[in-house]
Amino acid sequence: MKVAILMGSDSDYKVVEKGEKILKDFGVDVEVRVISAHRTPYRAMEFASTAEEKGFEAIIGAAGKAAHLPGVLAAFTVLPVIGLPIKSSTMDGLDSLLSIVQMPKGIPVATVAIDGAENAALLAIQILAIKYPELNKKLKAYKKAMEEEVIQKDEGFDRIRD
Amino acid sequence: MKVAILMGSDSDYKVVEKGEKILKDFGVDVEVRVISAHRTPYRAMEFASTAEEKGFEAIIGAAGKAAHLPGVLAAFTVLPVIGLPIKSSTMDGLDSLLSIVQMPKGIPVATVAIDGAENAALLAIQILAIKYPELNKKLKAYKKAMEEEVIQKDEGFDRIRD
Amino acid sequence: MKVAILMGSDSDYKVVEKGEKILKDFGVDVEVRVISAHRTPYRAMEFASTAEEKGFEAIIGAAGKAAHLPGVLAAFTVLPVIGLPIKSSTMDGLDSLLSIVQMPKGIPVATVAIDGAENAALLAIQILAIKYPELNKKLKAYKKAMEEEVIQKDEGFDRIRD
Amino acid sequence: MKVAILMGSDSDYKVVEKGEKILKDFGVDVEVRVISAHRTPYRAMEFASTAEEKGFEAIIGAAGKAAHLPGVLAAFTVLPVIGLPIKSSTMDGLDSLLSIVQMPKGIPVATVAIDGAENAALLAIQILAIKYPELNKKLKAYKKAMEEEVIQKDEGFDRIRD
Amino acid sequence: MKVAILMGSDSDYKVVEKGEKILKDFGVDVEVRVISAHRTPYRAMEFASTAEEKGFEAIIGAAGKAAHLPGVLAAFTVLPVIGLPIKSSTMDGLDSLLSIVQMPKGIPVATVAIDGAENAALLAIQILAIKYPELNKKLKAYKKAMEEEVIQKDEGFDRIRD
Amino acid sequence: MKVAILMGSDSDYKVVEKGEKILKDFGVDVEVRVISAHRTPYRAMEFASTAEEKGFEAIIGAAGKAAHLPGVLAAFTVLPVIGLPIKSSTMDGLDSLLSIVQMPKGIPVATVAIDGAENAALLAIQILAIKYPELNKKLKAYKKAMEEEVIQKDEGFDRIRD
Amino acid sequence: MKVAILMGSDSDYKVVEKGEKILKDFGVDVEVRVISAHRTPYRAMEFASTAEEKGFEAIIGAAGKAAHLPGVLAAFTVLPVIGLPIKSSTMDGLDSLLSIVQMPKGIPVATVAIDGAENAALLAIQILAIKYPELNKKLKAYKKAMEEEVIQKDEGFDRIRD
Amino acid sequence: MKVAILMGSDSDYKVVEKGEKILKDFGVDVEVRVISAHRTPYRAMEFASTAEEKGFEAIIGAAGKAAHLPGVLAAFTVLPVIGLPIKSSTMDGLDSLLSIVQMPKGIPVATVAIDGAENAALLAIQILAIKYPELNKKLKAYKKAMEEEVIQKDEGFDRIRD
Repeated sequence: MKVAILMGSDSDYKVVEKGEKILKDFGVDVEVRVISAHRTPYRAMEFASTAEEKGFEAIIGAAGKAAHLPGVLAAFTVLPVIGLPIKSSTMDGLDSLLSIVQMPKGIPVATVAIDGAENAALLAIQILAIKYPELNKKLKAYKKAMEEEVIQKDEGFDRIRD
Repeated sequence: MKVAILMGSDSDYKVVEKGEKILKDFGVDVEVRVISAHRTPYRAMEFASTAEEKGFEAIIGAAGKAAHLPGVLAAFTVLPVIGLPIKSSTMDGLDSLLSIVQMPKGIPVATVAIDGAENAALLAIQILAIKYPELNKKLKAYKKAMEEEVIQKDEGFDRIRD
Repeated sequence: MKVAILMGSDSDYKVVEKGEKILKDFGVDVEVRVISAHRTPYRAMEFASTAEEKGFEAIIGAAGKAAHLPGVLAAFTVLPVIGLPIKSSTMDGLDSLLSIVQMPKGIPVATVAIDGAENAALLAIQILAIKYPELNKKLKAYKKAMEEEVIQKDEGFDRIRD
Repeated sequence: MKVAILMGSDSDYKVVEKGEKILKDFGVDVEVRVISAHRTPYRAMEFASTAEEKGFEAIIGAAGKAAHLPGVLAAFTVLPVIGLPIKSSTMDGLDSLLSIVQMPKGIPVATVAIDGAENAALLAIQILAIKYPELNKKLKAYKKAMEEEVIQKDEGFDRIRD
Repeated sequence: MKVAILMGSDSDYKVVEKGEKILKDFGVDVEVRVISAHRTPYRAMEFASTAEEKGFEAIIGAAGKAAHLPGVLAAFTVLPVIGLPIKSSTMDGLDSLLSIVQMPKGIPVATVAIDGAENAALLAIQILAIKYPELNKKLKAYKKAMEEEVIQKDEGFDRIRD
Repeated sequence: MKVAILMGSDSDYKVVEKGEKILKDFGVDVEVRVISAHRTPYRAMEFASTAEEKGFEAIIGAAGKAAHLPGVLAAFTVLPVIGLPIKSSTMDGLDSLLSIVQMPKGIPVATVAIDGAENAALLAIQILAIKYPELNKKLKAYKKAMEEEVIQKDEGFDRIRD
Repeated sequence: MKVAILMGSDSDYKVVEKGEKILKDFGVDVEVRVISAHRTPYRAMEFASTAEEKGFEAIIGAAGKAAHLPGVLAAFTVLPVIGLPIKSSTMDGLDSLLSIVQMPKGIPVATVAIDGAENAALLAIQILAIKYPELNKKLKAYKKAMEEEVIQKDEGFDRIRD
Repeated sequence: MKVAILMGSDSDYKVVEKGEKILKDFGVDVEVRVISAHRTPYRAMEFASTAEEKGFEAIIGAAGKAAHLPGVLAAFTVLPVIGLPIKSSTMDGLDSLLSIVQMPKGIPVATVAIDGAENAALLAIQILAIKYPELNKKLKAYKKAMEEEVIQKDEGFDRIRD
């Protein structure tokens, strides 16, 4: 089981790496790539159109501003493409979000929150978990641990605070 | 292979039914339900927490305004939840979109375009297609047909126009 | 007289504590909890559905991004739920605000300003004051003191400035 | 038990009346008034500053555009003021919403959804229910009925649709 | 000739003082006041309704968030009221701007740019200049000087840069 | 006493005429012109730079979309320029509003609400009233009449409604 | 001299045709095509990468929602690409605008107003006019005619109105 | 071949200089000017109306807030005008963008991303390249180099990261 994370610029890696870590923690193979829909369009096309035969089962596309990368990848593959909008220096991420989520009929991109790299990874794992039962189990354990963590914070709250 | 479409209000069905049709055309079993995160919270919880054992492999949650349904479902299941923001009478769908896509770390919702019911369905099929090769084939045929349709429009354009 | 403040994440406490202080200053019992609508959904449900019998008379729900907590609490109780939108790192609080205030028909959330923890507390007190005359008196004194403070600033302004 | 609904313009009544009806259905006395913060500022001030002694226990203020009415009322009373933003011909209600909800520290307005008159009324009832147990019972019945209605729609859905 | 600058909070003074300085430079008497529409509503009303008889000929109202001050002042006077929206910690000034500029029919507020204290002052001077010819002359000189300053920057640009 | 209303397009007249009527009702001379900052820039410049000597004392500039007209006029005159943002077919008036109100330091435009032609006229009259006492009197009568109208609606409300 | 107009969907033609007409009126050869960046990505790539050798000198790309077409075309050519954002059923054109204009460093798209097909065409002509003096002359005549039209409307205004 | 860059304020130069550098790197003559549409309107008009005869073939207009400069320049010339929106201290650049891009029919401005000075320069070069074959060659080399840079980052990514 293998997921690709493509980012439009290597400066996106400071966000993306949180997702990469989660995928690795779940035992999913990850390939992180710097591929731009605009500056390396042939590579984007080549990657997306051959991703399936290379064994990828989901692609995460991270991009900012007029964030076309996830939509462009989705045009060349039937693999699920997860769109991760990156906040840039203007417009507070709204441009990235709308450029990714508002895809026209026929070519969906599964969009997560602005700068939500962890959720992009978890969504990829949830998708793979339909096929791979071991991921399903790990997801349930992850969810349980997350719940426990909040409960501990809740129960420890008064003591920490006082 | 079975997908659930939950909508917060039966008035959302005029949007939702376009997605239901696509799922059926692909041969995927669909169950369309009217379940509100706010008005029938126990049913929402009950549905989501038992969806996996009932054989669902993806859930589409359609809702408008403060659209909590997809996020609430995602809280109770590790199945992929697809969020479909419905445009209501104010705010042009921006409220629905942000309420669905901006999920906090840990619980992703795979969000599609506002009123993008077809894409919600196609995304569900792309997700299932990782496991079911027949869906992968159908998706490629669908994509091919879509391409042909645009090509025909392109080639017929001058004649139609004049 | 007792009010609960629930926050989706303990990182919200830096905003929330200003409200907690006001409630305590007014002599209202406060219970501050870390409960997430998405990560601890059963606790959220359990808390809200039993809040009334535990003696709470109003609930403040603070959350950011796709801020479902107040709406989810409101689904399980008829107590007044006050929604406190927390500004997060993107979208300048607009996502939190819309996710909280745009509740569908039937389940209201009494929403205050983004990061407006003091006002969430004061609103809770105004609500309780309908029943508890001593709070009504304290509110009038508080309002008077607030007025005096502005008047003093106004009258002292030229001297401070010069 | 008595609630006032003030609207800045009689043209707001087409929205407001849905809330008035709910209040009456719950057996709450309602007084609907046309009072403008800008065109009849003395009446607004006079109403708000004497509302408590006239027996009102909550005030709903409905206004559009630069919607100052709820905030202005709140300045003159310690009664809970519920703000109901009305959508006007431009800005899709965002101006009304922000003008009402973003109140500065010290003077809260309990804001509901744009054009959400029913929720403004229900919130008023939830507030009064802290004091009046009969309203608490009615709210629970209302919530139950609302739940039943959605359940019926859910269960009847397939038959209606086919 | 006399202008009042009212601000809702003394924290607005860091913006407001730039306008005060311009008014003084033009020889206009200025009274700077801290008066809140919400926390000192009687003083706001009292000030606005007596401003004309006290010799004021224009009022600048500066406020942030749900910025009601200029509109509330305008309700009590026929003097021109200039609205100066102050940017606060959320919403980037959009809430202040819309709360001030979107005044309903009958009660205008002359709105300037967010944090545009200089322009609020210059607008007040332009208004007074209709009556006071000496201000008209000074405005023309000011405009000429401003033009010269830009021209000098333009002409000196290459040398400074290299 | 004379006011000019310039509009960027004759299609704006359906909004503008409401302001023209008010000015005439107050006995102010009005000249309505179709002058575009972009299509007839020389006329715009010529008009603004000679407006004062032609006896105008205030200018209303109405424009939509990238609404430069009021700002361009203000560049060529020290007369007060009132900006009236016109809503066009996209962006709900936000583009017009921001293009008019966000003027840089040095050249203010007194901006009123989107499509707020009546308020543009009333603001012009308030400005002239500083110099012309008869306008001051008329404004007070107008304000009184407006108040009476709302009071009548308020008092007649129950009867009309039942 | 030859310009291509590509639109993502034939439904965009109702907007696009106004631009096509202007180009033809100026004697510029136009080829209107239906090519989707997402549904016919190979044709988009093929068109853009060969446009120059086929004699095109500028490309207009019209698209709505997550409007990637102009940016994708620009990735494959050094010809100037003009982006024409089309308003769709949600978000009032803001999604299209931001998806087109916010292009990352290196690959510009010359963006015009939402639904501004005429301006897209005129911009193409202005670009070609650098090389073709006859277009420069025609543009000046067009501009003159446009000015005359506004002047006539201005001068005829009083008569039409009365 | 010569391009002018006009900026409304010398403070915009920190953004603008990145574009100036690119133009110089391509061997295009550049004249950088500080000319304000509002503070030096005659110079703006004079510059634009004589730019063509002075040998300029494209103009870049950079401005913030109510950014009228590019539109005003476009009114006085048929040369292509490129609009560069500058982000200011409020509204995150949205005001500048809308003020520049939403030009009315007849007078286009070729708008690039907020603070996108490099793209403004590259667009100017793409426009000139229609006439000057040497620029066409340089653009292709530039694009190739840009592609290579991303490819190198992509290929070096794993090594750098580990």
